[in-house]
Amino acid sequence: MTGPRTRRPTLATIAQAAGVSLPTVSKVLNGKDDVAAETRARVRRLLEEHAYVPVGARRAATDTVVVDLVFTALDSPWAVEIIRGVVESGVEPVVSAMAGNRDWAAKLVRTRRAGALLVTSELTKTDLRLLERARVPLVVIDPADLPSPDVPSVGATNWAGGLAATEHLLELGHRRVAVIGGPYGFLCSKARIDGYRTALERAGIAVDPDLVRHGDFHHESGYRHALELLALPEPPTAIFAGNDEQAMGVIEAARGLGLDVPGALSVVGFDDLPVARWSAPPLTTVRQPLAEMGRLAGRMLADLIAGTPPRSHRLELATPLIVRATTAPPADRPPLNSPTTND
Amino acid sequence: MTGPRTRRPTLATIAQAAGVSLPTVSKVLNGKDDVAAETRARVRRLLEEHAYVPVGARRAATDTVVVDLVFTALDSPWAVEIIRGVVESGVEPVVSAMAGNRDWAAKLVRTRRAGALLVTSELTKTDLRLLERARVPLVVIDPADLPSPDVPSVGATNWAGGLAATEHLLELGHRRVAVIGGPYGFLCSKARIDGYRTALERAGIAVDPDLVRHGDFHHESGYRHALELLALPEPPTAIFAGNDEQAMGVIEAARGLGLDVPGALSVVGFDDLPVARWSAPPLTTVRQPLAEMGRLAGRMLADLIAGTPPRSHRLELATPLIVRATTAPPADRPPLNSPTTND
Repeated sequence: MTGPRTRRPTLATIAQAAGVSLPTVSKVLNGKDDVAAETRARVRRLLEEHAYVPVGARRAATDTVVVDLVFTALDSPWAVEIIRGVVESGVEPVVSAMAGNRDWAAKLVRTRRAGALLVTSELTKTDLRLLERARVPLVVIDPADLPSPDVPSVGATNWAGGLAATEHLLELGHRRVAVIGGPYGFLCSKARIDGYRTALERAGIAVDPDLVRHGDFHHESGYRHALELLALPEPPTAIFAGNDEQAMGVIEAARGLGLDVPGALSVVGFDDLPVARWSAPPLTTVRQPLAEMGRLAGRMLADLIAGTPPRSHRLELATPLIVRATTAPPADRPPLNSPTTND
Repeated sequence: MTGPRTRRPTLATIAQAAGVSLPTVSKVLNGKDDVAAETRARVRRLLEEHAYVPVGARRAATDTVVVDLVFTALDSPWAVEIIRGVVESGVEPVVSAMAGNRDWAAKLVRTRRAGALLVTSELTKTDLRLLERARVPLVVIDPADLPSPDVPSVGATNWAGGLAATEHLLELGHRRVAVIGGPYGFLCSKARIDGYRTALERAGIAVDPDLVRHGDFHHESGYRHALELLALPEPPTAIFAGNDEQAMGVIEAARGLGLDVPGALSVVGFDDLPVARWSAPPLTTVRQPLAEMGRLAGRMLADLIAGTPPRSHRLELATPLIVRATTAPPADRPPLNSPTTND
């Protein structure tokens, strides 16, 4: 019985089918006992057959807020963490992707759901203006650019995470530490790299431009940049890979070159996706609380829709360093401050 | 400007705000030139400020079909592959999870969206009956149990995949081959294990019950079962791990025991998630076309909703074996048919 959608049955439909009056159906529904047993049984059967849903229950159901949840692309295990958090927040997300859909913002305005969560590092000013003008309540997760101060956003402490990852490597004794960030325009990537720079500066180590790279946050770019870095005349002994997927690519590049991780090369990721624990060896990484970000963003949006202004327009959740097995002291620790000065 | 949702502006709202008549607004909208330039500019500005959406555009937008997409749980990178496929099919999925929501089927009936895609290995007969009675158009993805013949489903050729994985190991010379399936009731798991049994039988090798295990498709259970298998008096030289996540657990267990993969132990997964390519070494696995399954299921559901009966009620997509680097001939190949007979 999976035919096209049928009309929602009303009490009148049931009354007609049972050959009784509307008040009689109502009495059966409300458990009153002044209805003949046979009639009551017949009405009950029809209510069940027609899958009648009492009006109260319908209202409760429609109380759930349906919102858009728009990703840049649905191409990473990353996304499922965010989705789980949003679902747990109680809003009902219609999931879509901007990829291959240039018109997404206009479509969002046309469909006019209660609100939208944008998980994106590529929100253009034009898109944002369109959405603001249409007054679609918005919350941005992991914003690429600092959105308009009116738009609430939930992110992670990317800068502090980049700092902690790099300080961990410096404490182990590494002095040639490279970083592979994400795409240039991405705010989260810029913050992680700035954290890396600050850690080096605090340790009195000059930033070597050869050791600062930009990938696209995917496995292949971690692999490619690691091969280039490891082919330098003075290769790094440690790489902060910007995210977990790139870290896996770095580890694969090291394996291809016969370099032991962490014996010959230390690697740190960012995100702490489930794969970080499964990797060989298990990945030292910075934990980004993606599900928690989704939960918070969902609740903020529900509040906005209900007319409650957010207490804060910019939330950043903490990003603890998780030390596993891809980081160790460098094989031959270079003397302090030596190799980075010759450029 | 992210205040609570405002009413959709009508032409009357615009006319009132502009201090002109309704036909005047209509003329401006339709590009007629018998309106004073100043009036036209004012009306246009108001249309833009109010984010007025022409009725035609609204209708086009609501033509998109919003359906439920219900997962057993949102806890695996697996889910994002399915979601991407469904989104690409053109329907708009409201994503939710049965986990922690016992009432999910009743809720689905109450909210009454155009239809539902269920990605589940735990559909009870009660749930199914409720949904059928409510006439919610349904398509099941990766069904656990053979659903009612009326409910169309999209799966993968799990049996053929299990067969191919095991034959690959046998062709390499393995004779002690173990399998770790998923939970007992899961149809996909049963089919994979049956494929494994058939491959052994065709090779004239008796199935050793000690080598047939059931996990829960998660990393930890692959790890635990591999430790037990490798502690047997006569351990396997190859493990068909049932899915990729369990395969990662098996590889971690081997690493912990100092066993080289594939030198001392061959491992085959199932799914070919992106992580299979990133694993160390890259995982030999059976490809389950999850995104394609999502695309097909989405299209089948859209057809059902439009009143077109599906051409087939049960689609199974092919599952090719992808040979990477976790499989090799056994270290010391035992003589044919010897070790499996002593029990």
